[in-house]
Amino acid sequence: MLKIALLGCGRIGKMHAGTVSRSESAQLAVVFDPVEDAANQVGAQFGCAVAKSAEEAISKADAVLIATSTPTHADLIEQAVAASKAVFCEKPIDLSLERVRKCQKVISGSKVPVHIGFNRRFDPGHRAAYDAVRAGEIGDLRQLIITSRDPGLASRDYLRASGGILRDMTIHDFDFARFMLNEEPVEVFATGSALIDPTLATEFGDVDSIMVTMKTASGKLCSISNSREAAYGHDQRVELLGSKGMLISANRRAHELQRFGPSGTASGEPYLNFFIERYAEAYSAGLESFIRAASSGSAVEATFEDGVRALILAETAVRSLAEGRSVAVSEIA
Amino acid sequence: MLKIALLGCGRIGKMHAGTVSRSESAQLAVVFDPVEDAANQVGAQFGCAVAKSAEEAISKADAVLIATSTPTHADLIEQAVAASKAVFCEKPIDLSLERVRKCQKVISGSKVPVHIGFNRRFDPGHRAAYDAVRAGEIGDLRQLIITSRDPGLASRDYLRASGGILRDMTIHDFDFARFMLNEEPVEVFATGSALIDPTLATEFGDVDSIMVTMKTASGKLCSISNSREAAYGHDQRVELLGSKGMLISANRRAHELQRFGPSGTASGEPYLNFFIERYAEAYSAGLESFIRAASSGSAVEATFEDGVRALILAETAVRSLAEGRSVAVSEIA
Amino acid sequence: MLKIALLGCGRIGKMHAGTVSRSESAQLAVVFDPVEDAANQVGAQFGCAVAKSAEEAISKADAVLIATSTPTHADLIEQAVAASKAVFCEKPIDLSLERVRKCQKVISGSKVPVHIGFNRRFDPGHRAAYDAVRAGEIGDLRQLIITSRDPGLASRDYLRASGGILRDMTIHDFDFARFMLNEEPVEVFATGSALIDPTLATEFGDVDSIMVTMKTASGKLCSISNSREAAYGHDQRVELLGSKGMLISANRRAHELQRFGPSGTASGEPYLNFFIERYAEAYSAGLESFIRAASSGSAVEATFEDGVRALILAETAVRSLAEGRSVAVSEIA
Amino acid sequence: MLKIALLGCGRIGKMHAGTVSRSESAQLAVVFDPVEDAANQVGAQFGCAVAKSAEEAISKADAVLIATSTPTHADLIEQAVAASKAVFCEKPIDLSLERVRKCQKVISGSKVPVHIGFNRRFDPGHRAAYDAVRAGEIGDLRQLIITSRDPGLASRDYLRASGGILRDMTIHDFDFARFMLNEEPVEVFATGSALIDPTLATEFGDVDSIMVTMKTASGKLCSISNSREAAYGHDQRVELLGSKGMLISANRRAHELQRFGPSGTASGEPYLNFFIERYAEAYSAGLESFIRAASSGSAVEATFEDGVRALILAETAVRSLAEGRSVAVSEIA
Repeated sequence: MLKIALLGCGRIGKMHAGTVSRSESAQLAVVFDPVEDAANQVGAQFGCAVAKSAEEAISKADAVLIATSTPTHADLIEQAVAASKAVFCEKPIDLSLERVRKCQKVISGSKVPVHIGFNRRFDPGHRAAYDAVRAGEIGDLRQLIITSRDPGLASRDYLRASGGILRDMTIHDFDFARFMLNEEPVEVFATGSALIDPTLATEFGDVDSIMVTMKTASGKLCSISNSREAAYGHDQRVELLGSKGMLISANRRAHELQRFGPSGTASGEPYLNFFIERYAEAYSAGLESFIRAASSGSAVEATFEDGVRALILAETAVRSLAEGRSVAVSEIA
Repeated sequence: MLKIALLGCGRIGKMHAGTVSRSESAQLAVVFDPVEDAANQVGAQFGCAVAKSAEEAISKADAVLIATSTPTHADLIEQAVAASKAVFCEKPIDLSLERVRKCQKVISGSKVPVHIGFNRRFDPGHRAAYDAVRAGEIGDLRQLIITSRDPGLASRDYLRASGGILRDMTIHDFDFARFMLNEEPVEVFATGSALIDPTLATEFGDVDSIMVTMKTASGKLCSISNSREAAYGHDQRVELLGSKGMLISANRRAHELQRFGPSGTASGEPYLNFFIERYAEAYSAGLESFIRAASSGSAVEATFEDGVRALILAETAVRSLAEGRSVAVSEIA
Repeated sequence: MLKIALLGCGRIGKMHAGTVSRSESAQLAVVFDPVEDAANQVGAQFGCAVAKSAEEAISKADAVLIATSTPTHADLIEQAVAASKAVFCEKPIDLSLERVRKCQKVISGSKVPVHIGFNRRFDPGHRAAYDAVRAGEIGDLRQLIITSRDPGLASRDYLRASGGILRDMTIHDFDFARFMLNEEPVEVFATGSALIDPTLATEFGDVDSIMVTMKTASGKLCSISNSREAAYGHDQRVELLGSKGMLISANRRAHELQRFGPSGTASGEPYLNFFIERYAEAYSAGLESFIRAASSGSAVEATFEDGVRALILAETAVRSLAEGRSVAVSEIA
Repeated sequence: MLKIALLGCGRIGKMHAGTVSRSESAQLAVVFDPVEDAANQVGAQFGCAVAKSAEEAISKADAVLIATSTPTHADLIEQAVAASKAVFCEKPIDLSLERVRKCQKVISGSKVPVHIGFNRRFDPGHRAAYDAVRAGEIGDLRQLIITSRDPGLASRDYLRASGGILRDMTIHDFDFARFMLNEEPVEVFATGSALIDPTLATEFGDVDSIMVTMKTASGKLCSISNSREAAYGHDQRVELLGSKGMLISANRRAHELQRFGPSGTASGEPYLNFFIERYAEAYSAGLESFIRAASSGSAVEATFEDGVRALILAETAVRSLAEGRSVAVSEIA
């Protein structure tokens, strides 16, 4: 049984605590949160120790799960790796590419497994699509279309601190695109608008609706559609066009009730809301992957380098959006 | 080009006229209807002769399409066969099994093709299911479930003259069940209620909601659900359970618009209404099958004997409904 | 926290243990199984006491979950009720209607909540259909069609001891039909064949493919299709036709990957296999319903009387199958 | 009855002849094709006159349907308009924007209806989506995603003369995007690759896989995915994201047979192949729209100006593809 220290007991942290408690290969040993009450509550619910500091928590476990606020991620990764504890860190590593690279340099000598929480790689439908592509089922991959829309605009505070839609939301799609394409994008074009809340543009210089187009060296094309709001629920779809066919990993509902009436057919439920429900199985599969890596030395399936690469694509897209042209990834990194 | 005489210029007759006009192997030569105006209108629209009598129409064509009222069918079949003209006759042949058998005796010496208009056999989806079963795709057929519901109650006059739901509506399902099972049912159980309009029971001794269960000699099971009303449109489904899999020929819409909103997903349209739209392709394919039989001597795909057999099943079901027990088909015929 | 004693640590018992462990309102206090190893294993996995006898287990808990073999159910219910412990008992109460009635008499004076494990009532899709009907969404209910097919034939030993398909498998559908119809069936017709394994008929006098038709006093119709084998997976569908529309609670897959190729579109996965996966949420919701009843006195949602009624329908169907006629439920009870 | 002259009796011409023959408001009066045999064949099949020249055909009809090769379109439009005959012209007007503008100048004084054959505007599903957007069903439109993929690569000769994928294939999507957005795009970014046949790039400087992103003045975003090949059939989808919901007009099959087996569920048929089948109803509805405009003066629903605008977007995309940057439409026109 892998003993896990959970750092950060907010919404995501609590979700991870529940996931760990259901695992047959790991247990929650200790939790820490700068907000003492939050830590105590999670400690009580899951019957585990509550540490007074991150250091203490790290020292009491075999592996560390970082679910604190983004600006603390890089420091905690460095601390945990220094203590030779395997690390599962929520994405993004940091909003600053410079800080991420410094962190990478700091931990570069270590062989401790570091797993970045790119959960979509582990969603059952998306993973089945990935496996089908790798198995040659659709021949040569030609086009990848990712649709990723949140059900509703996050709070103003969240948006202000988010680093902008490309670094906060599209980052998932950048990672996922790399994963599915199995090849690095070399050119990025991004365009967007503040259609949901025009003050995002005027106050933060941000947008809420994004279309990104990427191309790999071999010419594969990728399109991403993001929206900070989707009235019909959390919309998470992937489409892969290959020489022999197409795959679509579609949305999922809470159940399959269909209603037939004079004005047509309707399903009984909107799509699963929000990412915690939508990606519940993915969070669990991602954690199990990390536990395997931490326990038995199997390969990390979402590496620190993956975290770096996703951020580089985000920075490339940020420049494209600012300059209205297609930007080569090599301009950034 | 096969010259066709159309007898009967009502709703169904007009529909057939349009279908003939689109065929590349037949043409509408002459029409007749006791209501002169109806005949004249169809004659003008399709640019063909208008006969003063059924005899005259029959004499002027190679083949006869009977779309008159049910009580005239048997007489007209006898007349057309006597004149050695191929016959396409709308179902049912007659509401009286006795009359049908007399007609069968009268035409028994002739080799003139007689095709009964059981259109469902020719529906593209249902036919593809039939072909898949014949090709062994689902192994041994075990269960057949037919759902057949009309969008709304027909007029009181229609219902009064219909011969009852089993002879008027379920007759299609009896034929279709025989076609799909490829084996004769030997036992029939029927139960029903007048749930849509209770006065159907009190005034005509009829019901509007029916469930029929049949069994073949080898033990195959068949269930039929009928309703004279379905608020969501014309409901025409077939399900086939076999040892290796299942087939469902599902309903069809006018188009594939899907609407996604806060309360779920909806299609834009109810099912195709009514049988003329739903079975447009089937009517056309059925007519082409008849034209081939009449022109080139290919086998009739919905024979007079099929018409007789369907009626026998209806009579068996009528007795079952009356006596509340499973009735052997051999009791009737 | 309701302390639960689990009696029976086989496949179903273990599943219930996992469900209890995820509940926030109950905990597994003690387990018992006549096979000591089975009890010890579950005790170790879930960190709870292991009792030497059912009596001991019952005495150490607030509520009892009976997941032992069917012939022991009635005795254990009587014991638990005598000890004033709330009871959750797996279906069926017993294969003998006489024994069930005796048990009912024995416990009749007690107000202890007794919940029978009819899990389908708690499936999210089926329950949403139930709620929609109760809310008047489809007007007056007219027809209910239940499809319930197991993925594959159970072992010969299981089948021999099962009491026959009507008492073992259709019993779920009888209960579920009563639940959805909200009215007692008064007439039952059953027909069936041994199509999957003909020796079931010759050796046990049983069948493996069943169609049951039922009618309520007000004329509502219900059809059930059962099969002991479905090559495409566990098939669990419900269709409700009402005066204003139709509802279908359809099957569910592990994920929503769709594959598009030259020969059409395919989903990536068969239906969820088997009932433990298919009804995972239902087992959980059913247990929570029981916990509420045991803890706070809310109404039991699947009562002992429901268990009796389902068995009476099964016995009525058994007679119908034997005698080839529609049987009034009043003949049995 | 509007008398129509058909110019051009190739594949598309013949298809239009059939569509006219089914109309109740128009008739095929005369046909012309420089290949005499082609004209004679269509004349015989539809029982109409065969002209020796385009002039003769134009003179004998009320309206002219131009289905000749693209380079002749502009001349024939000018001729027909000079003769005051209503014109239905297949897209594109010409591959040269200059020639199109000259033609526009020539006919600018006339009030003769000129309809460009942008058939997608008339597809029942796409039109229902359009109507729903106009009716405010999804609130403010924010994103439009068009997927348009041909089943297989056209012949080398066709591709050589096509003017490139953006002018030949994406032109449909440019028109359709304008129609659905109800607003002019002001910026266009295009990227593409020759993934299906790399020699398209080396020999014609063309690509076969395209992604185009457009933005309107108000910030609406549009993404187009094109492929000259789709192993699973003709893929024609439209997705509209608005503030209140989403609409998808999805693909359509020949029928609705579903196959359920051990490896999942499959539909029986690939998507409808090719545009003549897929857009049969659209061709018919488009022609009826033209007939109404020509007969009764109702507004033309796909104007010459629409043809010009679509070509301008294609030219903008051509420049973007060549220069790897987002191009303002105002740079072209």
